[in-house]
Amino acid sequence: MKTSHPPSDRTRVRRGAGNAVYEPALVRAIVDAAYLCHIAFSDAHGAHCIPTACWREGDYLYIHGSNGSRMLKQLMAQDACVTITHLDGLVLARSAFNHTMNYRSVMIYGRFEMVDEAEQRRSLDAFMEHLAPGRNAEVRGGNAKEHAATTVLRIALAEAACKVRSGGPLDDEEDMGIAAWVGELPFTHQRGAPVTDPACAVEAPAYVQQWASKG
Amino acid sequence: MKTSHPPSDRTRVRRGAGNAVYEPALVRAIVDAAYLCHIAFSDAHGAHCIPTACWREGDYLYIHGSNGSRMLKQLMAQDACVTITHLDGLVLARSAFNHTMNYRSVMIYGRFEMVDEAEQRRSLDAFMEHLAPGRNAEVRGGNAKEHAATTVLRIALAEAACKVRSGGPLDDEEDMGIAAWVGELPFTHQRGAPVTDPACAVEAPAYVQQWASKG
Ligand SMILES: Cc1cc2nc3c(=O)[nH]c(=O)nc-3n(C[C@H](O)[C@H](O)[C@H](O)COP(=O)(O)OP(=O)(O)OC[C@H]3O[C@@H](n4cnc5c(N)ncnc54)[C@H](O)[C@@H]3O)c2cc1C
Ligand SMILES: Cc1cc2nc3c(=O)[nH]c(=O)nc-3n(C[C@H](O)[C@H](O)[C@H](O)COP(=O)(O)OP(=O)(O)OC[C@H]3O[C@@H](n4cnc5c(N)ncnc54)[C@H](O)[C@@H]3O)c2cc1C
Ligand code: HEM
Ligand code: HEM
Repeated sequence: MKTSHPPSDRTRVRRGAGNAVYEPALVRAIVDAAYLCHIAFSDAHGAHCIPTACWREGDYLYIHGSNGSRMLKQLMAQDACVTITHLDGLVLARSAFNHTMNYRSVMIYGRFEMVDEAEQRRSLDAFMEHLAPGRNAEVRGGNAKEHAATTVLRIALAEAACKVRSGGPLDDEEDMGIAAWVGELPFTHQRGAPVTDPACAVEAPAYVQQWASKG
Repeated sequence: MKTSHPPSDRTRVRRGAGNAVYEPALVRAIVDAAYLCHIAFSDAHGAHCIPTACWREGDYLYIHGSNGSRMLKQLMAQDACVTITHLDGLVLARSAFNHTMNYRSVMIYGRFEMVDEAEQRRSLDAFMEHLAPGRNAEVRGGNAKEHAATTVLRIALAEAACKVRSGGPLDDEEDMGIAAWVGELPFTHQRGAPVTDPACAVEAPAYVQQWASKG
């Protein structure tokens, strides 16, 4: 993977630079923990921020949708910014000002490129495999018409920066005597019990049975 | 609240319009369930997508940060798009193509405005109250220097659209015989056990004790 060192003009974190990380391994880990990214691009109406499913293969982040999508068409014609954020907790400090959040975020800049049809099939299979290992063999795969209506784009994880915060609050020396509870209120990214479709009589495969415990 | 009906040129959902909702009450509910938004804006480097803490009061979404923030400065000078997304589940269908996700998302367009210092204090207090009811009385409030270094912006929840999907998969008639498990794999947005700071000897208040059960 092309390392993000040194950061580009676009990826050099200026505010809170102490929390910046430019490690390719962390970029990958933050992407892999996500099902979803937010993508910024512009058109005649101004800037847009669109939530979209995503997955990683190698050093690329992939997205997909309809050939007719405004977003996908724009993303082939201009640079974009893709952001993934995991909110890990609220950080409660002794002063209001020092309250903050724990998080892992990545911002990726660059131009998306369209993949050809063979790669589209392969990468959508990989997407499914990532979501539900083994499921490709159980469902009807995409047919020619469906694939012809679909666009898959990918962007290199090259021009990317992460910001990460963890741990408890950093209070000012003079506030240490304040008698407030301090610490972290964590968020967990958990899974609920699978909801079987009323019309389904098929036994739950391993990836469904293990869903709720994946945490 | 100024209703979003009829949608503007920017907020009319074109793709998957069946999932579009323009109800102010739903806009508010999606914002209230969030700690975090993603904001798209542009500068000489192109489009940016920045994750930021947010809260709602009345018919406005609020954000805050440093006077020196690139983002906050840009947001006073141009229209932006604020997006909040709650991912509720993976939807597993009988064909690969009909797989989808359940979600609640809102996209808000418009211009942020800066609030004055009195309103800044009031709204940051409201933010804290929203995070941890009663905590304002326990911590040191922001002092003059801290507030002077801080900017609070708000954007009207006026030009906004929601997209919502829930329930099981919608398969094609001809796929109904396929023997794959179908249904929803839900995500839950839960809280973990509070982590008390090692230097803290204060008993946990109600909002900390009840954190993990809030779900
Ligand atoms: C959960 C969460 C909550 C946050 N809440 C707030 C808040 O309430 N107020 C606030 O001011 N800031 C908040 N931040 C930080 C925010 O994301 C920005 O880092 C900050 O606002 C500075 O923005 P800027 O455009 O001025 O950044 P600059 O530092 O000028 O950005 C320069 C470059 O650094 C990189 N970069 C900046 N931010 C990030 C990031 N978060 N992740 C990865 N790369 C990044 C990008 O490449 C960006 O183009 C929050 C971040 C997270 C993850
Ligand atoms: C969790 C999640 C995953 C998604 N995954 C995908 C995916 O993999 N592929 C895909 O094509 N789409 C996906 N979507 C839908 C995506 O957010 C867009 O709605 C879609 O891509 C069409 O984008 P567009 O710019 O072409 O939309 P248009 O329909 O042209 O957008 C017009 C206007 O409709 C409103 N709008 C559009 N989308 C939303 C939204 N999500 N929430 C609120 N208002 C909206 C905005 O005001 C927007 O400017 C996903 C959405 C969510 C919430
Ligand atoms: C053969 C495989 C697949 C193909 C060809 C395909 C194709 C498409 C197309 C064309 C759209 C755009 C719909 C529109 O804008 O009108 C879309 C949307 C979407 N797809 Fe897929 N897809 C595939 C598999 C998957 C899988 C496995 C998932 C996993 C969850 C998924 C999740 C989504 C989501 C969330 C949307 C957005 C729907 C919305 O706006 O509500 N897709 N897909
Ligand atoms: C008196 C109240 C507060 C004031 C004056 C204030 C002020 C600020 C300022 C000036 C920044 C920008 C830091 C920088 O860019 O250098 C900031 C960042 C931030 N604030 Fe606040 N804040 C207050 C309360 C809170 C509260 C209650 C929270 C709740 C969690 C919070 C969460 C955050 C977060 C998450 C950031 C981003 C930090 C980062 O980039 O890692 N703030 N705040």
